[in-house]
Amino acid sequence: MTKDIPWVHPVLISLAVVAVMFALFNFGNVKRLLIGRPLRTRELNQSHMKLFWGIALPILAADLYSSVAYGPEAGITELSKLGPGVKWMIVPITASTVLLLVILITSYIMGVIAYPSGGGAYAIAKDNFKGKWVGLIAASALLIDYVLTVAVSVSSGIQTMASSYPALAPHETSLSVLCVLIILFVNLRGVSESAKIFSAPTIFFMVCMLFLVGTGFANELKHGFVQTHTPTWGTIPQGLTLLLLLKAFSSACSSLTGIETISNAVPIFRESKSGAIKAYVSLGIVTSVTLLGYSYSLYVQGVSVSQNNTMLSQLLLIYFGHGIIYQVIIWATFLVLILAANSTFTGFPQLSALVAADGFLPRALVIRGDRLGYSNGMIVLAALSILLVEVFSAQTNALIPLYSIGVFLAFTIAQLGLTRRWTKVKGRGWKVKAVINLIGAIVTAVVSVVVAVTKFTSGAWIVLVILPILVFLAMRIRKHYNDVADALRIDIEHSPPLKHRVISIVLVSSVHQIVRQTVSFALSTTTDVVALYIGFDDESIELMEKKWAEWGAPCRLVTVKSEYRSLLIPLSRFIKRLENYENGKPDHIQLLIGQFIPKKWWHQILHNQSSLLIRAWMLRHREVVVSTLPFQLPK
Amino acid sequence: MTKDIPWVHPVLISLAVVAVMFALFNFGNVKRLLIGRPLRTRELNQSHMKLFWGIALPILAADLYSSVAYGPEAGITELSKLGPGVKWMIVPITASTVLLLVILITSYIMGVIAYPSGGGAYAIAKDNFKGKWVGLIAASALLIDYVLTVAVSVSSGIQTMASSYPALAPHETSLSVLCVLIILFVNLRGVSESAKIFSAPTIFFMVCMLFLVGTGFANELKHGFVQTHTPTWGTIPQGLTLLLLLKAFSSACSSLTGIETISNAVPIFRESKSGAIKAYVSLGIVTSVTLLGYSYSLYVQGVSVSQNNTMLSQLLLIYFGHGIIYQVIIWATFLVLILAANSTFTGFPQLSALVAADGFLPRALVIRGDRLGYSNGMIVLAALSILLVEVFSAQTNALIPLYSIGVFLAFTIAQLGLTRRWTKVKGRGWKVKAVINLIGAIVTAVVSVVVAVTKFTSGAWIVLVILPILVFLAMRIRKHYNDVADALRIDIEHSPPLKHRVISIVLVSSVHQIVRQTVSFALSTTTDVVALYIGFDDESIELMEKKWAEWGAPCRLVTVKSEYRSLLIPLSRFIKRLENYENGKPDHIQLLIGQFIPKKWWHQILHNQSSLLIRAWMLRHREVVVSTLPFQLPK
Repeated sequence: MTKDIPWVHPVLISLAVVAVMFALFNFGNVKRLLIGRPLRTRELNQSHMKLFWGIALPILAADLYSSVAYGPEAGITELSKLGPGVKWMIVPITASTVLLLVILITSYIMGVIAYPSGGGAYAIAKDNFKGKWVGLIAASALLIDYVLTVAVSVSSGIQTMASSYPALAPHETSLSVLCVLIILFVNLRGVSESAKIFSAPTIFFMVCMLFLVGTGFANELKHGFVQTHTPTWGTIPQGLTLLLLLKAFSSACSSLTGIETISNAVPIFRESKSGAIKAYVSLGIVTSVTLLGYSYSLYVQGVSVSQNNTMLSQLLLIYFGHGIIYQVIIWATFLVLILAANSTFTGFPQLSALVAADGFLPRALVIRGDRLGYSNGMIVLAALSILLVEVFSAQTNALIPLYSIGVFLAFTIAQLGLTRRWTKVKGRGWKVKAVINLIGAIVTAVVSVVVAVTKFTSGAWIVLVILPILVFLAMRIRKHYNDVADALRIDIEHSPPLKHRVISIVLVSSVHQIVRQTVSFALSTTTDVVALYIGFDDESIELMEKKWAEWGAPCRLVTVKSEYRSLLIPLSRFIKRLENYENGKPDHIQLLIGQFIPKKWWHQILHNQSSLLIRAWMLRHREVVVSTLPFQLPK
Repeated sequence: MTKDIPWVHPVLISLAVVAVMFALFNFGNVKRLLIGRPLRTRELNQSHMKLFWGIALPILAADLYSSVAYGPEAGITELSKLGPGVKWMIVPITASTVLLLVILITSYIMGVIAYPSGGGAYAIAKDNFKGKWVGLIAASALLIDYVLTVAVSVSSGIQTMASSYPALAPHETSLSVLCVLIILFVNLRGVSESAKIFSAPTIFFMVCMLFLVGTGFANELKHGFVQTHTPTWGTIPQGLTLLLLLKAFSSACSSLTGIETISNAVPIFRESKSGAIKAYVSLGIVTSVTLLGYSYSLYVQGVSVSQNNTMLSQLLLIYFGHGIIYQVIIWATFLVLILAANSTFTGFPQLSALVAADGFLPRALVIRGDRLGYSNGMIVLAALSILLVEVFSAQTNALIPLYSIGVFLAFTIAQLGLTRRWTKVKGRGWKVKAVINLIGAIVTAVVSVVVAVTKFTSGAWIVLVILPILVFLAMRIRKHYNDVADALRIDIEHSPPLKHRVISIVLVSSVHQIVRQTVSFALSTTTDVVALYIGFDDESIELMEKKWAEWGAPCRLVTVKSEYRSLLIPLSRFIKRLENYENGKPDHIQLLIGQFIPKKWWHQILHNQSSLLIRAWMLRHREVVVSTLPFQLPK
């Protein structure tokens, strides 16, 4: 009988470790240790938190550039069943994505010029369309895609490693979840420090890929641009339909997600607008060179699609054999895929904060954490992507069809918005800019439709179902916030505070120091005070009444017998009775609960269970002011 | 690459399902659905909740009787490497455990006579030894063993099924955890109803085993008591050492755990003392007959120990072939092992409530749930046994050596206690009773030492380490409760409540309905009121001061700028300043927080995050009275 290796779910382990740390040590200290010292608000705009464009580029580029490793392969895989005669088409398909990349980057540079304070699709749509829903569609599409980016990148990174180290294969899901948790913690520490950690590997991966392309070019200079393995060029294979071609194209396009990252993050560049443009141009050149050079080498060497060995790995084996260079580049690929997930931990929280600030998402997403990042957004992103990884068991193939439709939708909206903007605002050379963005809009709209149609049955429908639901929820949230604001508004000049009549209920369990303190407090603040004793049997009630009389009955004592051993139900009944009190309904009923504050953390489990319960219950169910009086041991 | 089948941890799924149910429906309704209607305290002693001994027996017997299935096998397995010449020893080894069983049951009947209100080892030790630690050792040993019983029984039940259905093998851990969760929910519904569900399968298993023994006897009558397969009797195999023999004996003894259950549960018998004695005698007879008949049949048929096929399964195949009878008995074995775990869900909570009532464990263990069972104890038992199952990956072999040492320790203490009792109390035939219990004490003490020595390195040491830690913790808990009681005690005639000086702080975020309500409440109850505004920048602070003046400044407004965007730190500082107030330290500082009570459950995530945080912080850190004012939307 095969036994499964002992393990506990990584989420449970992480929660347990953090919980134990909090239990054993001071809350603040643990948070400092995990997250770092808090930063002042004004440090946000200080230049040392902002980044030189050469450092910002690799961080923001990881998402886009990492897909170089699988983009061309994803495209040609769709055609591979047509036989070896189709191999040459990897070059034109890759070239068409490069063309699309150039169009998109040019369009996005227009976006940076128009919105130097950082304008993603959401900000652009909000600014240029009257209907709120246009921007919300763009935002929802992007948020979905950010979550998918984390799930896909981490899963495929782990899969890459598992192909090289088969012992990892049975633990792919757990390892992926662990990766997401590590990325989350690093990001909770803040933007600047993640930069220092994360820029080097992306640069290293770029160098590796350019080295690979260079090696290919040198090889071709030496042995010829057409070699013995090179398949024949230009034959249209039998069975090639337009739909299949479009499917190959849209799979290859999945590698274009992540372009938006730079234009969203313009403010983190030390040079602002010009830094972002430099980054876009450099990224465009490097990515295009890599894609074209890499796919041409694949063509020249006649590399086939294989189940167990990626095309990248095959090409590496041809040039360098199974040695150290192979290992290094595989590791670099793994790291850059993890970093692609990391870059999303900047994008998602920023976008959700922007949307939440407009009242379309819970306000907690706008609160900056101790380290100035939007911690709540990061936690939401990590939780959702862990959920996706769990549900899809870290299987990249199942996740990819959901991917990229969102991005192209958002692209289209952004380009349309920019076009409208140029025709309104005008300015120097506005006609050229408008035409560039219009072309961008048309191209991305076409790609959106192509992706939606060709990938519909294999998963794109999920996104097309979730999108309108998200937009609807966002509208509802905004309406709720507006309703609340209306209800809370007062006429500031004619609504002074009023004197209220307050009845206090003190829950007593016996006569001791805590009861004495609580009754003292109640008598000092309100005139109507009732002590309430809930007993489970007649003997304890009699005893309490006797004790109360001995104590001199400082206020009225009401005793109630609870046959079901519940405190909550008799308490609720008593409060209801008070609301129909003989002298008219009071404005407020105050419930006073004495609470023992233990000296040591482990004493907490020995006390206070019922007061916790009462507070939780009252919060949900009643219009009662709940006051908790702490009592600490005198020694 | 092999892919792991998609699954999420069963604990996570269960938590998620329950959470979703609570979120979507009313708390009370879900609890009713899962747990059933609450029962009145007086229903506890009504006879319809008590059980006829013939029904109570199978429920309480499952723990002991289920081990019939593996007891003889566990013993002979230790010797199996000595070759086929050792096979006959299964009869004397099993006979010696039967002898031990008879001694134990006789001793425990004395216990029932002495303590008809239900006396386990803990109650007996408490009553007869001055040192608290004696009873605590017994209680800790039993509590550990209850947890082990759940883990071992559920794991071995699932392993039995996995041997028959290999598809289950990779999910043993998850399935075991799921079983524990199901048993927990059934038990939260209460004793009587679990009885109705659980007595039938144990009876059925008994019938099956007796049928098997009967078949064996019929077979032997027909074909002779020594058959062609029967190994020769009485040869001492080479290499048999005393240590090995003792090891075999102590492994076989692991099947004697669970005898204590009946004597702990005397009050649940409708006939009380006499019912429990009847149950003990019947159980002793049935178990002895089964053990002797079963092991004799194993000897006659010459069944060998095998890795992949239990001896029970082999014997069934010999008599009945691979047909329906085989399947039915395998299923019955599975069910009875699950029920062995179930019986523990009565024992553990009762014992922990007893110990907690004496102040040695958290008081929450004494509270009876809605259905009159000790719900908290059940939840603790389930959590600990799930932890064990996870850590040991549901591997029975690894768990068994930890088992049974605790039980024999508790047996010894109980027998010694009873012996002391007879010599003190005397009464009719006390000398016989004292001798019976003294013999029981000596025998169980010897077995304890044998088990501890022979199993020490394979896991018994873990129990011997945890035991003193538990006793120490129990002593500390009792001391803590005593200290608290001392600190809370007041001189009831000379400690009337006093008038206190209270300063109220109202946290304000703007001027709106909630602020108006909260300020009104503060001004109605206290004379010293300060409104506190914590702003993140200068503009918002200026705006607030302007608004406050427009509103007529009903009380003093203090504004604080928080550079770290924290509410908690400036609030703490402000409270510290107030404690050194110009007019002397106030007796109480009251913090008033206005809280928005949403109409719909999903609105909760849109509000109140900061007030929740403040309350949690204040509860841990300060001597501040926290009052929460609810505000509901008027419409």
